Amino acid sequence: MMASSYSSNSPCAACKFLRRKCNEDCIFAPYFPPEEPHKFINVHKIFGASNVSKILNEVLPHQREDAVNSLAYEAEARIKDPVYGCVGAISVLQKQLLSLQKELDATHADLIRFTHQGSSSLGHVHSHAFFNNPSN
Amino acid sequence: MMASSYSSNSPCAACKFLRRKCNEDCIFAPYFPPEEPHKFINVHKIFGASNVSKILNEVLPHQREDAVNSLAYEAEARIKDPVYGCVGAISVLQKQLLSLQKELDATHADLIRFTHQGSSSLGHVHSHAFFNNPSN
Repeated sequence: MMASSYSSNSPCAACKFLRRKCNEDCIFAPYFPPEEPHKFINVHKIFGASNVSKILNEVLPHQREDAVNSLAYEAEARIKDPVYGCVGAISVLQKQLLSLQKELDATHADLIRFTHQGSSSLGHVHSHAFFNNPSN
Repeated sequence: MMASSYSSNSPCAACKFLRRKCNEDCIFAPYFPPEEPHKFINVHKIFGASNVSKILNEVLPHQREDAVNSLAYEAEARIKDPVYGCVGAISVLQKQLLSLQKELDATHADLIRFTHQGSSSLGHVHSHAFFNNPSN
């Protein structure tokens, strides 16, 4: 009589938070289950419910889950780091990429030098090639 | 008589867009100059003016410029790619990092194999070591 028939008769996390009736055509319901209240609270805090619903309506239905998950990721990152949000992660990854590229270039250079000089440069090659390699 | 005295007597891009008076203590004015209207339009579209001002008030004054710039970056990324936003850039960087790490590991392995086998494996080392290297 009163509850939405969607997902175990509970309103979705969005409708519960916004204290409104959760209809069967609720745009939030498939992506914000009542068991994960913080997913909605976070995106609401950072983007606002109306911007989230605008984005959901703007993308194709099969893209909505990815859209919600990327919004949730961005919102969580911004709550943890209000200054840089997930742009902080981009900076860290770019620095790691640059450092790894340098390391790869140096290893290539070692390899070429070594092929020209023979095994006399082995000690240098080893200490250099494994320096700064996060997987070792 | 009517205009704010901040920055060439024009209201900032935020106050101009929101059609409100730009006071000297406007939280947006230092970061949204009238010459860059889209910087504000973008963050307003994605985060909403009130969420942006909340974040600005939450961080320290010397962090506000970085906060605005990272919000502007995120907003632009979300407008260009409504499904993934700047999380798409994070995925791309993570894939590049993984690929570079694999390449580095393979180059190390080549180097070790080469030092044990001598110059007979040179042809293999070269074709492999420079494969997938974005700087070449």
